[in-house]
Amino acid sequence: MNPSPQSLAEEKVFKDPVHKYIYVQDETIWNLINTREFQRLRRIRQLGTSYLTFHGAEHSRFSHSLGVYEITRKIISQFERGGYTDWPKEERLVTLCAALLHDVGHGPFSHSIEQVFETNHEEWTCRILRENTEINQVLSECDPSLPERVAAVICKTYHQPIVVSLISSQMDADRMDYLLRDAYFTGVNYGTFDLERILRVLRPYQGRIVVKESGMHAVEDYLMSRYQMYWQVYFHPVTRSSEIILRQIFRRATELYGGGYTFSWMIEPLRHLLEDTLDVENYLLLDEALMQTAFTQWLKEEDALLADLCARFLNRKLYKYITMDKADEKLWQEIRTYFQAIGLHPDYHLEIDFPYDMPYDVYRLGQDIMDKDERPPILLLGQDERLSEISRKSDIIRSITGIHQGKYHLYYPEEPLIESAHRLPPHIRELFGLLQ
Amino acid sequence: MNPSPQSLAEEKVFKDPVHKYIYVQDETIWNLINTREFQRLRRIRQLGTSYLTFHGAEHSRFSHSLGVYEITRKIISQFERGGYTDWPKEERLVTLCAALLHDVGHGPFSHSIEQVFETNHEEWTCRILRENTEINQVLSECDPSLPERVAAVICKTYHQPIVVSLISSQMDADRMDYLLRDAYFTGVNYGTFDLERILRVLRPYQGRIVVKESGMHAVEDYLMSRYQMYWQVYFHPVTRSSEIILRQIFRRATELYGGGYTFSWMIEPLRHLLEDTLDVENYLLLDEALMQTAFTQWLKEEDALLADLCARFLNRKLYKYITMDKADEKLWQEIRTYFQAIGLHPDYHLEIDFPYDMPYDVYRLGQDIMDKDERPPILLLGQDERLSEISRKSDIIRSITGIHQGKYHLYYPEEPLIESAHRLPPHIRELFGLLQ
Amino acid sequence: MNPSPQSLAEEKVFKDPVHKYIYVQDETIWNLINTREFQRLRRIRQLGTSYLTFHGAEHSRFSHSLGVYEITRKIISQFERGGYTDWPKEERLVTLCAALLHDVGHGPFSHSIEQVFETNHEEWTCRILRENTEINQVLSECDPSLPERVAAVICKTYHQPIVVSLISSQMDADRMDYLLRDAYFTGVNYGTFDLERILRVLRPYQGRIVVKESGMHAVEDYLMSRYQMYWQVYFHPVTRSSEIILRQIFRRATELYGGGYTFSWMIEPLRHLLEDTLDVENYLLLDEALMQTAFTQWLKEEDALLADLCARFLNRKLYKYITMDKADEKLWQEIRTYFQAIGLHPDYHLEIDFPYDMPYDVYRLGQDIMDKDERPPILLLGQDERLSEISRKSDIIRSITGIHQGKYHLYYPEEPLIESAHRLPPHIRELFGLLQ
Amino acid sequence: MNPSPQSLAEEKVFKDPVHKYIYVQDETIWNLINTREFQRLRRIRQLGTSYLTFHGAEHSRFSHSLGVYEITRKIISQFERGGYTDWPKEERLVTLCAALLHDVGHGPFSHSIEQVFETNHEEWTCRILRENTEINQVLSECDPSLPERVAAVICKTYHQPIVVSLISSQMDADRMDYLLRDAYFTGVNYGTFDLERILRVLRPYQGRIVVKESGMHAVEDYLMSRYQMYWQVYFHPVTRSSEIILRQIFRRATELYGGGYTFSWMIEPLRHLLEDTLDVENYLLLDEALMQTAFTQWLKEEDALLADLCARFLNRKLYKYITMDKADEKLWQEIRTYFQAIGLHPDYHLEIDFPYDMPYDVYRLGQDIMDKDERPPILLLGQDERLSEISRKSDIIRSITGIHQGKYHLYYPEEPLIESAHRLPPHIRELFGLLQ
Repeated sequence: MNPSPQSLAEEKVFKDPVHKYIYVQDETIWNLINTREFQRLRRIRQLGTSYLTFHGAEHSRFSHSLGVYEITRKIISQFERGGYTDWPKEERLVTLCAALLHDVGHGPFSHSIEQVFETNHEEWTCRILRENTEINQVLSECDPSLPERVAAVICKTYHQPIVVSLISSQMDADRMDYLLRDAYFTGVNYGTFDLERILRVLRPYQGRIVVKESGMHAVEDYLMSRYQMYWQVYFHPVTRSSEIILRQIFRRATELYGGGYTFSWMIEPLRHLLEDTLDVENYLLLDEALMQTAFTQWLKEEDALLADLCARFLNRKLYKYITMDKADEKLWQEIRTYFQAIGLHPDYHLEIDFPYDMPYDVYRLGQDIMDKDERPPILLLGQDERLSEISRKSDIIRSITGIHQGKYHLYYPEEPLIESAHRLPPHIRELFGLLQ
Repeated sequence: MNPSPQSLAEEKVFKDPVHKYIYVQDETIWNLINTREFQRLRRIRQLGTSYLTFHGAEHSRFSHSLGVYEITRKIISQFERGGYTDWPKEERLVTLCAALLHDVGHGPFSHSIEQVFETNHEEWTCRILRENTEINQVLSECDPSLPERVAAVICKTYHQPIVVSLISSQMDADRMDYLLRDAYFTGVNYGTFDLERILRVLRPYQGRIVVKESGMHAVEDYLMSRYQMYWQVYFHPVTRSSEIILRQIFRRATELYGGGYTFSWMIEPLRHLLEDTLDVENYLLLDEALMQTAFTQWLKEEDALLADLCARFLNRKLYKYITMDKADEKLWQEIRTYFQAIGLHPDYHLEIDFPYDMPYDVYRLGQDIMDKDERPPILLLGQDERLSEISRKSDIIRSITGIHQGKYHLYYPEEPLIESAHRLPPHIRELFGLLQ
Repeated sequence: MNPSPQSLAEEKVFKDPVHKYIYVQDETIWNLINTREFQRLRRIRQLGTSYLTFHGAEHSRFSHSLGVYEITRKIISQFERGGYTDWPKEERLVTLCAALLHDVGHGPFSHSIEQVFETNHEEWTCRILRENTEINQVLSECDPSLPERVAAVICKTYHQPIVVSLISSQMDADRMDYLLRDAYFTGVNYGTFDLERILRVLRPYQGRIVVKESGMHAVEDYLMSRYQMYWQVYFHPVTRSSEIILRQIFRRATELYGGGYTFSWMIEPLRHLLEDTLDVENYLLLDEALMQTAFTQWLKEEDALLADLCARFLNRKLYKYITMDKADEKLWQEIRTYFQAIGLHPDYHLEIDFPYDMPYDVYRLGQDIMDKDERPPILLLGQDERLSEISRKSDIIRSITGIHQGKYHLYYPEEPLIESAHRLPPHIRELFGLLQ
Repeated sequence: MNPSPQSLAEEKVFKDPVHKYIYVQDETIWNLINTREFQRLRRIRQLGTSYLTFHGAEHSRFSHSLGVYEITRKIISQFERGGYTDWPKEERLVTLCAALLHDVGHGPFSHSIEQVFETNHEEWTCRILRENTEINQVLSECDPSLPERVAAVICKTYHQPIVVSLISSQMDADRMDYLLRDAYFTGVNYGTFDLERILRVLRPYQGRIVVKESGMHAVEDYLMSRYQMYWQVYFHPVTRSSEIILRQIFRRATELYGGGYTFSWMIEPLRHLLEDTLDVENYLLLDEALMQTAFTQWLKEEDALLADLCARFLNRKLYKYITMDKADEKLWQEIRTYFQAIGLHPDYHLEIDFPYDMPYDVYRLGQDIMDKDERPPILLLGQDERLSEISRKSDIIRSITGIHQGKYHLYYPEEPLIESAHRLPPHIRELFGLLQ
């Protein structure tokens, strides 16, 4: 059955720096925004620790989620105005809800936490949709089948693939918003592309979203922006350093907890995280405010390693790094041995980072840098109604498809190394720039 | 004695959305930025609760402080290039330090906290400069007299008034940065003015900063921006509502604490705040992360009023408001009585707000809307070297000088009023829009 | 009878720096843009001689006309989406045509030409609509009554005043476009205001366009922009100087022509202008290219005054000016006498300019700075459906209503004055800054 | 001998939309701007006929020349502040003059005119520098050797190659300004890149300008912008169509003139152009105003072909085009034959255009798309002081180096073809889309 959304008597408007205004016309959308689970996204930064590199990047997942909703709303509205029969009109509300809620399961510093605790924000999103939450209540009141349908869109199992592709594909509303938004708040201008033009050349076509061939250059520009943002912002080595510190904090805390260590300060939701006993209620209490408070309290923790890591994160005394073109396990092992000899902790004080540990590129058929999962490629719709994969038509996209870039970075704390430099052999000192 | 700053071997650069780049050339400035007290400003929002009205307004005092520093650096650099003898060159470093550090004593949600606890961020700034902190250490290492000199600039007692006026006057670096920055992050375009032109027409002149008369229109534009930002952003009634909730949380917690109530959750720095026993060490641990964590924990507090207030703040269920042109103490008393009769708490559930409880205007000789303290007026420097106060020359500034605006807002929780509407007399119901 | 416009099979799009894109959906609009009379607007600058002050201001009336059309299209489209019954839907096409064509009768450097030759661009617009032109043909083909109806809108005699007020009122599409466009191309940022918000708060109401009261601050901002643009751009003294030169060229040419002087170079449409025998055909050949070509040819004209004026205009050797607070006819007469004595031409080499020779202000009930004709005031629509004139509600608009500003400028050629300075009495020399 | 420039008592400022302000500090520069030869650049559009595709592109070479000057000024100023010994300080003024004047020899619609008449704007620039002009006078007054030295820089024969490379290399001030400026005035946002960052990473090094390796991504972004601008703006098929019409006008006029045809309207400088007897005096009178006036007059020319071409250009009735992937001389010959059979002029009414008739790419070692002349490649300066050509370090630049793109376009007048479609064989009709 199809939900019959109720229009608001008067359109609601949010002022937004990226889209100027965000328009809400449906009561269900308005109510979803006002749930406590959605408001919680205000306390989770969109770019995790990037604010330590780009001080403007303090924007929240709340604003990004509104942005994804707004782009989706505009696309659908264009489809409706154009009267395209390939767009299933009855899917409007479910699509808007999925756009708004697709990130609602994100925890604080998601990427780091997910790596250490092997959680998955998409699963949490679906639990929040399905379990006893205000979001579930708002959706169910509108239509009892709505929670499941929205979850299906987010898990990419929905029976209408065109709806899924609006939220998750090589050129979906999610990416379009985050590129523009992250560019705006960091202040770099690499992420800007002509959103209005791209929206104008999108077409629903046989169960997918395609691009009119005349819009090819706009798509090229979008992919170039993406390329630049990955290298200039998302993979910035200072941000990687802060993520390493963060993961080490979580790793150390888990290690200590598992070993029966008594924390001088603990808080319920965090205990559940360390114990792996989180339920939705406690998961929702985990936000970046709570994490930072814990780190502040742990500054005085007895375990010197944990206290030091927290101080590094809070006061931005991050690890330094050196760069190597190739892997050299033997050398790394040698470094670890020397580090241990001068009193450093080999499992923490040397971290080898290769940001992209699998073949990747800025645009690949069915593969994506960040998410590593399969996403439908970008298809051009010719005037003859034939579809072509974009890299067949665009020389520049073909050129960059398959570029492999990336180097090894060795992260380490600088101060102890300087202090004990005289105890290291010359080739190690040279490597770390410690020769006079 | 004059501090002899050391130049950095290589200029450091911060990417900034407002000024594009922020340039650091002095080692002392670089070291100050890296102190834990300055890094803490990342955890304090520039606009307090405004992010609940404008979701983009999540920027921190850290970024604003860098911005004030950058504008000051540009002004000084222009003065040096121009070779103006009225600018005391030896004051460069102390001015830059004061610009960078002028807000370092701000606590979380400063305006609300200062009202409830009668603290003062300027005092805290001076304590941080003088007591045992990393900032004091960096300044002292540069020159033992530097901490006191920077404190004197911030307290406006410095022997060189021109230095004070760069940091604090009707058109200082502080205001210029915050208008531009707040406009950028909220997304409104009222706050933009031509910074480059204003910087170009500033002149040091007989112990003060004045404006070349040819720049009068640029100053008009700056004052108009200010006017718009006050009414559209800073005095926005939704933001006022969230500040009221915040103050009520602090008020209730203090009341409970004073009455011997046992909190189910407490944390050290907060206890000191409630006890009025804060020292610098604990003050620095108070940040917005800690406050939000406390509110989250207090959601389950036994005191229903406190728990409700915290839930309102975290989930953005703010008080509604009605507007009245004039004060009417008798009516307000009557409302309070009815509110009490239907089970509302008269000291909390009705708050009368008049945002500007003293004569104010957007630009007044020696008086300022926000700070209410005396600030030197804006003087124009004619080609004949004569000074004129700007409102004598500018019709538009004269026109707006002295505009009194502002209405009374009555804030209250909507839900209980709707529930008990039938128990209220018709004229009260009408006032609150509760008649069908 | 109502014209039944034909929709284009595919929407046409123009890239526009101000509105990003301009969308054409009606075949009639598309055909009008492609007429030779409309294309001619590419050869007429929007801001006349302002490019001599602001070198970026080279934009044409063609781009402005498209912009007015686009804003009107957006307003109507919002009215249609909102389903307001006060908007007469059947007037859509006539309104769009009037928006597009309202400036089609402008000649080169209109303001100057109209003053010297007492022509009127609105009359020419109506003749172009009615006589044998491609525009008349396109309109007539759509509907035989359309030319007359469009003319009626432009002449403000149309039976539906709401249509007229979209094109011509205190806050019409014309002004909204030119403020934004002139700000963009000059590069000043005074003219920017929140167009999107203003469009959102406009409402058709009882035969006029009104503004929802909640949009009052956006209107304030728009009026402030207007104020700034008048003083910073439109009344810029250097632009005034170039307009004076231009008028003097036309005045001298007419004088010579009337006196039987034989021009060494003449061109047909210009002869008709001097003879006052222009018909539509020749009027349409008058463009800025032709004018500049004439001035270039007249550089070698025997009449030294005309040749000098043309050289001044083409090579930007404009008249200098001095400023006087009050009128002083006696002094001016004295100056003229001295000027004549040193060989200057008293009717040309001293021009007294008071830019606003009648009471004016930035916003007045029923009166307008630039056009001096009556325009309907801005009305706010309260939640109680009552209308209020905006200056009753807005302190700032009330403050600036009635501001009289403006000084006398005396324009003169600098070089001959310097050369003959020794022949002038000291008080005149002092006045013109010629004392050492 | 080294010119000793005189500083202006007060810095002069131009408002510029691209760089915000342009600062003039030297009297020589100020005087050059005020020469009649430089003022003439106001009457020559920077982008030739592109305004027929992008109506905002009405900006002049005057504004571009100021922009190139300003970027050069900023680069030099950064070099001076950095105290780099590889920058020859005494070359400051000659470099600024060359930057300002590098385009002063451009005629109206340069690219088209140069193709038809085989003139060369660089030669004209040098003649204007050397012959009897105001520019020559200003330069000579400053230093008698200055005209020759500026000419040498522009002709790339100057003894200091580093000066030449600022004005003419793969990443010179000329290109940086035009990409930003053309993007601004057309309204596309492809041409934007981070100018401030690029300026910051430029270094003088052993006789050339190089880029600090840390700035590599900024250069990538600049080259991507260039790529996009070429395809979206400079090679736009509608612009190409208007250039074809323009060249045909000149070709036809020359043909007629050579054949003894008597023009009903002619003007001196144009006659010299057709006769190939232009001297500097007459060359300087050739501007776009004069050209457009000629076209307007020729609307009534007896030669129907010339009159039609002029009408097409003025009224923007351009040729249509079809696209072909490969050359097919046989087919083209066949088309020409059919065209002739239906009364079209085979030398005019079919024009085959391949925009890039030689191997090209967006960035090639020593070769350039637009100019086709050798330009020094971009070199990165590593921390180890070693230089590397950028495409060795940047995967993305290596990828796009050598991309060959481009198709054949066949331009033709649409109307006569439609009229005579029935007289064409089916395969030709199909080719031109004339089948129902």
